Amino acid sequence: MPHRIEDLKPCIATVQVDNERVRVTRYTFLPGTDTGWHTHGHDYVVVPTRAGTLTIIERDGSTREVAYVPSESYARTLGAEHDVANLSDDTVEFVEIELK
Amino acid sequence: MPHRIEDLKPCIATVQVDNERVRVTRYTFLPGTDTGWHTHGHDYVVVPTRAGTLTIIERDGSTREVAYVPSESYARTLGAEHDVANLSDDTVEFVEIELK
Repeated sequence: MPHRIEDLKPCIATVQVDNERVRVTRYTFLPGTDTGWHTHGHDYVVVPTRAGTLTIIERDGSTREVAYVPSESYARTLGAEHDVANLSDDTVEFVEIELK
Repeated sequence: MPHRIEDLKPCIATVQVDNERVRVTRYTFLPGTDTGWHTHGHDYVVVPTRAGTLTIIERDGSTREVAYVPSESYARTLGAEHDVANLSDDTVEFVEIELK
């Protein structure tokens, strides 16, 4: 089972659009929450909407911190596998647009 | 020529991603700026990142005000034709994801 940091609660995922082209989900990370381990089944775009730092946990257990700056968007391709955790004291949020 | 509000300067459009699947553009509307008249050539998703009210000017000159709430995203289909203007005193911003 890929690494995951214990004692974290699930972040809040709110699906805002789900049509034949995209699924748009807002992820709200209260302190001490994470997505849980997941593999991206689609190419996707991330648009940060609340500033803060999240920790990405890779398959091999290594971690890296990523600063999310509102409106500083990025795109990634399908197949990415990780857990995304909020180990900070701030609520962090982004909107993910999955390209079906 | 469709109606448009005079004396507005162009908003700031920053292309953040442009690949075979999407074009991701951040639109920053300083007070007194607009997109200018445009027709959407692609289905698109809008993710507001800075709160405020923008005015949509339709082809027939009618206008409607839309409140943009950070992370409250929406999707629209190609063919939409309008001008988007910031007639308020606040800077308003959103990220637009065009689906190629």
